[in-house]
Amino acid sequence: MKLLITGGAGFVGARLARSVLKKGTLGGQPVERLVIADQFPPPGDLAADPRVEARTGALLAQCASFAADRFDGVFHLASAVSGECEADFELGLRSNLDSTRALLDALRAGVAQGGKVPRFVFSSSVAVYGPEPSNPMPALVRDDTLPTPQTSYGTHKLICEHLVADYTRKGFIEGRSARLNTVTVRPGKPNGAASSFFSGIIREPLAGQEAILPVDPSVTHPVASPASTVAGLIAVYEATAEQLGGRAGMNLPALNVSVSQMLDALEAVAGKTTRALVKPVPDATIQRIVGGWSKGAVAARAAKLGLEPDRAFTDIVLQYIHDNPGAVTEQAKAAAANYERSRGA
Amino acid sequence: MKLLITGGAGFVGARLARSVLKKGTLGGQPVERLVIADQFPPPGDLAADPRVEARTGALLAQCASFAADRFDGVFHLASAVSGECEADFELGLRSNLDSTRALLDALRAGVAQGGKVPRFVFSSSVAVYGPEPSNPMPALVRDDTLPTPQTSYGTHKLICEHLVADYTRKGFIEGRSARLNTVTVRPGKPNGAASSFFSGIIREPLAGQEAILPVDPSVTHPVASPASTVAGLIAVYEATAEQLGGRAGMNLPALNVSVSQMLDALEAVAGKTTRALVKPVPDATIQRIVGGWSKGAVAARAAKLGLEPDRAFTDIVLQYIHDNPGAVTEQAKAAAANYERSRGA
Repeated sequence: MKLLITGGAGFVGARLARSVLKKGTLGGQPVERLVIADQFPPPGDLAADPRVEARTGALLAQCASFAADRFDGVFHLASAVSGECEADFELGLRSNLDSTRALLDALRAGVAQGGKVPRFVFSSSVAVYGPEPSNPMPALVRDDTLPTPQTSYGTHKLICEHLVADYTRKGFIEGRSARLNTVTVRPGKPNGAASSFFSGIIREPLAGQEAILPVDPSVTHPVASPASTVAGLIAVYEATAEQLGGRAGMNLPALNVSVSQMLDALEAVAGKTTRALVKPVPDATIQRIVGGWSKGAVAARAAKLGLEPDRAFTDIVLQYIHDNPGAVTEQAKAAAANYERSRGA
Repeated sequence: MKLLITGGAGFVGARLARSVLKKGTLGGQPVERLVIADQFPPPGDLAADPRVEARTGALLAQCASFAADRFDGVFHLASAVSGECEADFELGLRSNLDSTRALLDALRAGVAQGGKVPRFVFSSSVAVYGPEPSNPMPALVRDDTLPTPQTSYGTHKLICEHLVADYTRKGFIEGRSARLNTVTVRPGKPNGAASSFFSGIIREPLAGQEAILPVDPSVTHPVASPASTVAGLIAVYEATAEQLGGRAGMNLPALNVSVSQMLDALEAVAGKTTRALVKPVPDATIQRIVGGWSKGAVAARAAKLGLEPDRAFTDIVLQYIHDNPGAVTEQAKAAAANYERSRGA
């Protein structure tokens, strides 16, 4: 089979690509070719895999060419992030709305030319949810909670879910939309997402650096580890339409945690001195954006696929330490090893 | 003030234009200029009004020029109808999605050039609602029922609601979306809407002609008269954001009736021989589309604006007869006059 991952050089996309290549099959079919479309080139290990073909450049400009590719499957992850879209309205429209439309129309053109109907997973977001005067947000958002997004990012994600559903209904793709939780802990540098601090407050202290906490520690949020997020995307790809319960967007499993619980987990794993590196510096813009997001989520439809949330935030901290040993101080690694030994005992 | 009505030469649009011109003001401001943008020229009475300026042609091609117009208000009614969009996917994308986006971007450009933020009413539809395996449709859809549309028409209406909400949030327009019920009785010829028969089964018999009933008489549906629909659009325009309860799309008041109740009303007003002109000829395509629509609707937010549904379907039949005397047989008019006398007594 021939697979496309848009945004496949990004953090989640590259991890998904690695998982798919390691697994070797998707939906029982051997993955013979994996096209990674991204504005940046893929990491070296992916570029070196003979099955991988990198197509580097703006997605919108690439889409028309996809009609001739006859992809069997697509994971559409490419996206500008929430903070970027709030700062630059045009960027959001172009990157999140126009690109998805162009991608869907290219696949539709491929089918019209006699190609097979590709399976298509759209990475949506729990940012589709938000409070409106006529639609207050429940403590936990569910698959069937009415989404009234409060950011352009969430608006565009929701709009694309509905496009995916309608292109699917018409038989142009076999689409499904999975709402990702905030993925944490992301490695590397902070990004433009308003949710970036949900990784920063763990990642930076583990590297021995100060981190800024822009919101109140009582803020709760649905999060998921990189591993569970990727497992969710693959499970949604491999599920039948019947198993998914139809075309409407669905939540992926979330661990609902408060920032103070996240910091408690950091302290449990990596010690008091590590946690002490987190400094509260309230940021009104981020508070406003995060205040419009869901406080927690449940994922009944994903549970029917056998998907479960990460068990505890301590597991998520440990996952980061294991995956990124070079980005963690020796002191924190030693503390984590102690923690795991004591927990195992 | 300078007002734009897209689709202003259509049935609802022209009736809205007449109401606004007769009223003379909108939101307390005198209507000095009314631009009617439509693919067809407006009816003669509207074209003759010195305040009216007709701009005839495809909306998508006209939109860019609207940036310089500095409209104070916009009613966006132009739309391809449901049956057309199911038959021609590209037409639906162009007419209902791309045109709305281009219109919003033109208004945004006008504001960026220093223009006033225009008030904007989007005519959405109860066709946004539909049943999904994961989201069965309630007997009555409410303002906050989760919309999972089952047609491209409903999908595009819902997407445009979310664009209107986000452009409003960003301060580019002062937008609100009102979900219209099926407007009946429409005069003239059947149109491409799958809902066209909801008018045809009344209009044709009143003209002494046979009418086709393509669905089971037990089908129920939310309908509204032309007069109550136009009153709803004007009330939504004139309401404050606080009165509306925020930016999410809202239902207009519906009379929830079964087809057999509609035919009973026709018989009560215009007699047995008139009703006998309705012939059942089941149509699988229309049944499928209508089967995916709501069976009835409630409009709690509209009620807070003082808007009420039409009282009875007999009133809707009488409204049609009064408004279109030339399209009704003398026999039916005489029966209706008798009915009104007996009811008044």
